[in-house]
Amino acid sequence: MKIMVQKFGGSSVANPERIKLVAERVVSYRKKGWSMVVVVSALGDTTDELIALAGQITDDPPAREMDMLLSTGEQISVALLAMAIAELGYRAISFTGAQVGIKTDKTHTKAKIIDIDANRIKNELGGGKVVIVAGFQGVTEDQDITTLGRGGSDLTAVALAKAVSADACEIYTDVEGIYTTDPRIVTEARKLKAITYDEMLEMASLGAQVMQARSIEVAKKFDIPLHVRSSFNYNDGTLILKEADIMEDFVISGVTLNKNEAKITVCDVPDMPGIAAKIFKEVSKSGINVDTIVQNVSRKGYTDLSFTIPLGDLAKAKSLTEKITKFIKAGGILVDKDIARVSIVGVGMKTHPGVAAKMFEALAQKSINISMITTSEISISCIINKKNAEKAVRAVHAKFGLGK
Amino acid sequence: MKIMVQKFGGSSVANPERIKLVAERVVSYRKKGWSMVVVVSALGDTTDELIALAGQITDDPPAREMDMLLSTGEQISVALLAMAIAELGYRAISFTGAQVGIKTDKTHTKAKIIDIDANRIKNELGGGKVVIVAGFQGVTEDQDITTLGRGGSDLTAVALAKAVSADACEIYTDVEGIYTTDPRIVTEARKLKAITYDEMLEMASLGAQVMQARSIEVAKKFDIPLHVRSSFNYNDGTLILKEADIMEDFVISGVTLNKNEAKITVCDVPDMPGIAAKIFKEVSKSGINVDTIVQNVSRKGYTDLSFTIPLGDLAKAKSLTEKITKFIKAGGILVDKDIARVSIVGVGMKTHPGVAAKMFEALAQKSINISMITTSEISISCIINKKNAEKAVRAVHAKFGLGK
Repeated sequence: MKIMVQKFGGSSVANPERIKLVAERVVSYRKKGWSMVVVVSALGDTTDELIALAGQITDDPPAREMDMLLSTGEQISVALLAMAIAELGYRAISFTGAQVGIKTDKTHTKAKIIDIDANRIKNELGGGKVVIVAGFQGVTEDQDITTLGRGGSDLTAVALAKAVSADACEIYTDVEGIYTTDPRIVTEARKLKAITYDEMLEMASLGAQVMQARSIEVAKKFDIPLHVRSSFNYNDGTLILKEADIMEDFVISGVTLNKNEAKITVCDVPDMPGIAAKIFKEVSKSGINVDTIVQNVSRKGYTDLSFTIPLGDLAKAKSLTEKITKFIKAGGILVDKDIARVSIVGVGMKTHPGVAAKMFEALAQKSINISMITTSEISISCIINKKNAEKAVRAVHAKFGLGK
Repeated sequence: MKIMVQKFGGSSVANPERIKLVAERVVSYRKKGWSMVVVVSALGDTTDELIALAGQITDDPPAREMDMLLSTGEQISVALLAMAIAELGYRAISFTGAQVGIKTDKTHTKAKIIDIDANRIKNELGGGKVVIVAGFQGVTEDQDITTLGRGGSDLTAVALAKAVSADACEIYTDVEGIYTTDPRIVTEARKLKAITYDEMLEMASLGAQVMQARSIEVAKKFDIPLHVRSSFNYNDGTLILKEADIMEDFVISGVTLNKNEAKITVCDVPDMPGIAAKIFKEVSKSGINVDTIVQNVSRKGYTDLSFTIPLGDLAKAKSLTEKITKFIKAGGILVDKDIARVSIVGVGMKTHPGVAAKMFEALAQKSINISMITTSEISISCIINKKNAEKAVRAVHAKFGLGK
């Protein structure tokens, strides 16, 4: 008995018609002999509607009650999908996260899965039923309902795939797979046949929005191959695998763009040991996620220190940095909201020298100035002016020959 | 620590504004020192909307999945009410039927409560929290979600009142209480201060729609006084009590009207033993609830047999009766859809003679013909022509001096 886990996002189950199409897809696999476990998100905008409803009651809903509220979205989806599959003449049974034994910690609104008791699922699969599980939710040891945070349904799917020892795990979404870059920016963008977990993680952290990092991390940890594909057709999507299983040998897999960052520069910082630590300790204590940090060479005992933060945290970060600036007797701060991060990602760069130089050359040829650079083992990021963002992505994408 | 159970119906929590008003009411009791258990129905039309959603998927949804779907309505309500109470600065915690240990049998869509494990509620009450419980739902021993059928939230409230040994149980609705008759028909209709369980049961079965019979039966069984009142003001409503606790001594408590019945007459039935049994055995086997039955005196070995059924079952009952008519060689059938049932209800009629005569006199004075009569220990019903229905209710209501 081969087991497949399929996960369908909100756009795939946006309305009854879409749900019927999902039912047909699930049944087509069931007919081929697969034992099916299906994870479903809330219908279309349901979650946003529930959040809006809570917003009419209070600006500060208790997290436990928010989870109680939001978890109804997925519960509606699983019931409707079970009905649609029954309507096609196949036996199906729906479960909430609690019913199916998805145990989490007590961190409401972003709980971590601790354990899954897959016995009930295995029993129902053994009885020939399609098992449908509400994504995004779990239950604490006290039987309180929790939700798993953004991308939670993907996480449910991956964790279930592990728990039932699935032979395949498919993530259905509204795009056809993972592309070399955003096709809305570069029309030649090519759908990747396969990508490694590490590349996907890097791309997710650099701005690609197809999957959240947490579910990829879990898939990597347990070596569960994921197939990301579209629920609107039957085309192959992109496989997410461990490096050893990738057949193709591309140096670079993709180019990402992130326009949701801002840069803060602290000017004329006294160049003494511990000063940088003082700044970033304060900023990180406030929960702001500092990314790229660049420190200029010291000039007459003073240096400039630049770092990037999410655009949404700018106001908080600015007022915090201003206070620290006074405290450490630095010259002042500069804020730049017009930045963009262009990154290349690829496991191949570990073994191919000259990748960074090639990227800088691509930008130089288009007269695009680079204000900051960071690298990881499998990625290189350049911070540039926002107005050049799309031009830079196209230039880099072309330089590495990523197009069709 | 005195415990109060309050139940709020769908119209009382139709939108966020209404939910806030319910929160204020609950908190006003909490401030007075009551330990509060609050049972809530789904927001306004939510249940109907969910049923419509299922209807777009299938005409024949599996009952288990229907319960999975519908139970989300109350889950949304409890979460929102908990938020609204928290917003007022009081601690509240919401529970699904499953979380709070409302165990039912497996009869999906109309499950029976088997047991309630009130420990979690008592613990939370002991900790000073307002406990909010989703009405209308429970859970089987297999952890499958069930719903309790029409009037299910009332049943949840009454059963919880028993389980926590509540000192008071209030049922909030969109009317001010139980009236001597429908105020839309008789403007002088008076709100009753109190009514017995038996009278309320009789009125519910005769067409009054304020409360379903099941929850009244449970309240009677465990002697839980109910206070039916409006969520739109703070006026006293109507108490539902055992007879011994009623102070006032009215002969008649109310007049009810039911216009949702039809009459079938089987003509020229051979008057032999067992014939009536044959007819009603067949009809009841089909699930149709036969009410009043009248058999005329025999004439030359033949008799006429009339009975009433719910209007919605007419087509089914008619074709069934036609078959039986042929089988027993009766003359044929007559169908009358233009009937109405006017009833008087009152425990006083057990000890006061002449009540029936007084009712017939009231109708005679208005020249209203009575086609069938039935009586129970505490009620008398007359079947009349539908066109006289409201006139009859007004005449009887006046005759017994029930008005203000």
